[in-house]
Amino acid sequence: METKIISIIGFSAGVLTTISFVPQVVKTWKLKKTEDISFLMYMILAVGIFLWLVYGIFITDLPIIIANSISFVLTSIILVFKIKYG
Amino acid sequence: METKIISIIGFSAGVLTTISFVPQVVKTWKLKKTEDISFLMYMILAVGIFLWLVYGIFITDLPIIIANSISFVLTSIILVFKIKYG
Repeated sequence: METKIISIIGFSAGVLTTISFVPQVVKTWKLKKTEDISFLMYMILAVGIFLWLVYGIFITDLPIIIANSISFVLTSIILVFKIKYG
Repeated sequence: METKIISIIGFSAGVLTTISFVPQVVKTWKLKKTEDISFLMYMILAVGIFLWLVYGIFITDLPIIIANSISFVLTSIILVFKIKYG
């Protein structure tokens, strides 16, 4: 039973940190402004998430692969917006 | 040898995704502007990272505990900035 609760906490953590970037994508899509957003943050984050993805592929861990594929797409979109809108 | 490379990739991924928030903290600290930053993103992210921390404590995984403690502090600082500067 406790193992189930721990799994639910881990799963919830993964879902939340993965979908967290959606509101920023939507906001920037509408606002077309990225002045206050750090380019360096999203650059480091995208590389880091990409390495998590590579790590997930190496250890064949599907949750890591799925979560980081989605996060990588979302952070890359924010990064492209940042480059586009400055 | 390959296990060592996989560990290095995982470790690098953890370090990068954790420290990625530092440039945003520094930028917002200097700029005192958060208009383009999504409150909802940092709210969901902080809760998600907190759950990772709880998960790490439950499974007694020190890298998860350390990385998510630092990330939680950094995203909380950005969240406080967002609340303060709007």
